[in-house]
Amino acid sequence: MDPTYRPSLLEVDIDSFHVLPFAGSDLVLTPAQWSSHVVGKISSWIDLDSEDEILQRDSETTLKQEIAWAAHLSLQACLLPSPKGASCANYARCVNQIVQGLSNMQLWLRIPLLKSDDDSLDVDSDHWMDSWELWNSFRLICEHHSQLCLVLDILSTLPSANSIGRWFGEPVRAAIIHTDSFLKNARGYPCLSKRHQKLITGFFNHSVQMVISGKPVHGIPGATTGAAANHIDNNVNSMQRHPLRSYLDYVGYLYQRMEPLSEQDRIELGYRDFLQAPLQPLMDNLEAQTYETFEKDSVKYIQYQRAICKALLDRVPDGEASTLTTVLMVVGAGRGPLVRASLQAAEETGRKLKVYAVEKNPNAVVTLHSLVKLEGWENVVTIVSCDMRLWNAPEKADILVSELLGSFGDNELSPECLDGAQRFLKQDGISIPSSYTSFIQPITASKLYNDVKSHKDIVHFETAYVVKMHSIAKLAPSKPVFTFNHPDYSTKKSNQRYKKLQFVIPRDTGSAIVHGFAGYFDATLYKDVHLGIEPSMATPNMFSWYAILFFLNSCVKGS
Amino acid sequence: MDPTYRPSLLEVDIDSFHVLPFAGSDLVLTPAQWSSHVVGKISSWIDLDSEDEILQRDSETTLKQEIAWAAHLSLQACLLPSPKGASCANYARCVNQIVQGLSNMQLWLRIPLLKSDDDSLDVDSDHWMDSWELWNSFRLICEHHSQLCLVLDILSTLPSANSIGRWFGEPVRAAIIHTDSFLKNARGYPCLSKRHQKLITGFFNHSVQMVISGKPVHGIPGATTGAAANHIDNNVNSMQRHPLRSYLDYVGYLYQRMEPLSEQDRIELGYRDFLQAPLQPLMDNLEAQTYETFEKDSVKYIQYQRAICKALLDRVPDGEASTLTTVLMVVGAGRGPLVRASLQAAEETGRKLKVYAVEKNPNAVVTLHSLVKLEGWENVVTIVSCDMRLWNAPEKADILVSELLGSFGDNELSPECLDGAQRFLKQDGISIPSSYTSFIQPITASKLYNDVKSHKDIVHFETAYVVKMHSIAKLAPSKPVFTFNHPDYSTKKSNQRYKKLQFVIPRDTGSAIVHGFAGYFDATLYKDVHLGIEPSMATPNMFSWYAILFFLNSCVKGS
Repeated sequence: MDPTYRPSLLEVDIDSFHVLPFAGSDLVLTPAQWSSHVVGKISSWIDLDSEDEILQRDSETTLKQEIAWAAHLSLQACLLPSPKGASCANYARCVNQIVQGLSNMQLWLRIPLLKSDDDSLDVDSDHWMDSWELWNSFRLICEHHSQLCLVLDILSTLPSANSIGRWFGEPVRAAIIHTDSFLKNARGYPCLSKRHQKLITGFFNHSVQMVISGKPVHGIPGATTGAAANHIDNNVNSMQRHPLRSYLDYVGYLYQRMEPLSEQDRIELGYRDFLQAPLQPLMDNLEAQTYETFEKDSVKYIQYQRAICKALLDRVPDGEASTLTTVLMVVGAGRGPLVRASLQAAEETGRKLKVYAVEKNPNAVVTLHSLVKLEGWENVVTIVSCDMRLWNAPEKADILVSELLGSFGDNELSPECLDGAQRFLKQDGISIPSSYTSFIQPITASKLYNDVKSHKDIVHFETAYVVKMHSIAKLAPSKPVFTFNHPDYSTKKSNQRYKKLQFVIPRDTGSAIVHGFAGYFDATLYKDVHLGIEPSMATPNMFSWYAILFFLNSCVKGS
Repeated sequence: MDPTYRPSLLEVDIDSFHVLPFAGSDLVLTPAQWSSHVVGKISSWIDLDSEDEILQRDSETTLKQEIAWAAHLSLQACLLPSPKGASCANYARCVNQIVQGLSNMQLWLRIPLLKSDDDSLDVDSDHWMDSWELWNSFRLICEHHSQLCLVLDILSTLPSANSIGRWFGEPVRAAIIHTDSFLKNARGYPCLSKRHQKLITGFFNHSVQMVISGKPVHGIPGATTGAAANHIDNNVNSMQRHPLRSYLDYVGYLYQRMEPLSEQDRIELGYRDFLQAPLQPLMDNLEAQTYETFEKDSVKYIQYQRAICKALLDRVPDGEASTLTTVLMVVGAGRGPLVRASLQAAEETGRKLKVYAVEKNPNAVVTLHSLVKLEGWENVVTIVSCDMRLWNAPEKADILVSELLGSFGDNELSPECLDGAQRFLKQDGISIPSSYTSFIQPITASKLYNDVKSHKDIVHFETAYVVKMHSIAKLAPSKPVFTFNHPDYSTKKSNQRYKKLQFVIPRDTGSAIVHGFAGYFDATLYKDVHLGIEPSMATPNMFSWYAILFFLNSCVKGS
């Protein structure tokens, strides 16, 4: 669009409608090119909150006209200029109105990555000190619309790491690095500070596109216009070499330098930031594929085997190893991985074992039978096709082994199942796990919040989801919530729990929006052998559990 | 599953739950193989409507157990045996209960392709004469569930073509051809009758999988077990050659022999049986991509050009060709295809033309400007950026050309727009098109009906959809509905219409379910030049319009 264009300056011949075209022809590119290669850039002069009424009206007209033209070309996105001042109410109102009528196109609001650490300045003044506040008020007026995203302008000074962290839970689509944010390396080429490098790498990890903007301000050897160091180079390169090429090369180098994804990460790529309903293995029988997946988590079963070894050694002194048989019951045996871990622990410790494998899913029992036959365990393992809460055990167990934990510990009804099973545990018997605790922490998670909101009902907000978290910001350290111990023979025992928690967001973060809470668990299998997903102490390389997410119907701003 | 297995014959030791496994191990195939290569076959002895109470109870238990096992293996589908008698209420009730709990697995009810032409037999008797009735009552009890599909058993005798036609609107997933339905060709190999061939080709066209079943009943040369014609052949083939191989080869040959899809059909493959909201070009501005697609429909513009030629010749005698200038207005010019057709018609006929191109979408006007410049039409074409209903034309038109028709003729508000435009048409002027009529016909369309139903609201049932129809059955010839003529200067003129129609389904069809109506239009552009999509007189090779579909909230059974 012509940058000098102002609707108010047009002399329109109302009667004949002979308006001159406001843009160049769309035929310069094919529809496929428009819709895949181009992001629209809305005229940067617009100011919908200006005191100047003509400018304000011209701005609104132009904004609508330009976005309509972009929609006509089926562009994927349009870049909206940053609001001119702290007040952006009319701009946001107008964008909200526009975004309601767009089919797929996204609107990317440009926001400088800026936060002053000086708390003494007034936030309500015209010079906002935290650009996140600007984004947040704009986004709230647009009712958290899923097609409203943002683009960050990266300046030469960066806010604190905590403050930057907030943005990873927001829908950042691109980052614009200005040439004057670059430093100069020993050879005179542009490079970035360590903190900038870390930020760019983080963006790459979150599929944020990089844009380089500005004039070349580094006198790069051989890249200055006119005088080339070598006339052959000149012939070959001067035609093709973009003046910002050396900036792009440097950013490309940062990308190349990144660690490749681990194989497990590659497998899980499709699950990132995707809402999954938690399993309900007590109500629904798991499918063969699900067993297959979980059985592959070798780290988990190594931990169980370590715990069973320790329990066997505690229970049977070396002198009685050949005479005393330990009765071990796997409750919820599935297709048998804990049966295998138990028998391996018995072999490792030289202890004699009698195993009962109790499983309520008749389909898993079929596999269990063929496993026992295949491995020749018929004399050691007894298969019981029954719900552990109903089984009349023929004898009592020394050790009860189970893997009934959900991402939040108790959410797959482990406490209720084990309460039913402890009937057949000896008074001094051991439960593996012996206890487990749930944890939560507040998060920003725009993408997931919008996914929940898109259902337009309360049910989806009151559902807990299992998620491979990626584009989220963790706002404060997690805190423990509920603990369950097994066995528990106390008479006043109850599985009901209630808890109030207070989270403190680090001071240098600034404000942030809390879309909900991420939940985790940590379980003590036996003594010092634990297993869990709470980030600060998670068992490494385990993939059976993703975090569980609880969303807030009305998200809150914390600071 | 063991075919002799009956739950009632099991001696269960209730206390110890030591039940023997009811099936072989799932570990013989990988989860990926189970879920992609295998369709479960439910035991054929089951009869949930038997008078024998034990059999009835065993049947229900076994059905549930087998489907649970199939779900455990993540199979894509299970084949349900055909109901044993005309009454299938308990069977269908039980299947309906089961299908509610399935995540993705389909249940395929096996139905023989059978319809007696003898109307004298009592339909209510135990021997149903039309197997469609059996399917229909089963499906209705299952509330038209989208995961309930069907498999047809092809017998040696086929019902009439009309009767077979019904099934192409039903969710047929596979067809089982029995070896005794095959004939023997001159060389002793199996082949099929012409009518069977046509049916199989129809199935292939609708992605119905073919199954060959039964014993090899054709003494095929060299394929008999034991005695081979040639001992080398014997060594190579007898190991690998399946006894039904020659039947499969023949069916494969029928597939190979099919006409390949036309390029247009291949492009449109992804649109088959897919609900699309009709365009609303008066309310919404079309996108560049949409113009691009429609402009490619050369057949349509050739018809327009033919009509404009005839109108020009009628309007301007040969003697006045060089002196008389015809004023032609394209109302709704878009990006200019009708402007081009008009100028080509002028050139073809040697008539002088003055063109006004009226277009209300400002984005299309941008392209129109560059087109006129590019083609050097500045002296002939005047571009008017305006809604035709509001334009104050500087002169009156001899010919008004428009393409405002929707799939149902008037559904994109062509009558209302042209009513507004005829103000600037001369009293004796010509409108191209001069009239258009809509048509409807009753259809069976299970897949589309389920798509509409899945929204669980009335709004989607009361929406008309544009659909590239494929898996639908047309039950009776179409009938004309509403006609509009242009120009229309009558004083009592109204665009309101009301019509009652009666459709007669051909007698040999049998009963059928009417999910709704397919709608079409036929337009008279000028005199004998027409344009339309009504199947019996559709303009060939035109792709701008698919049929429009009107669904019935409560579908009705017709016969």
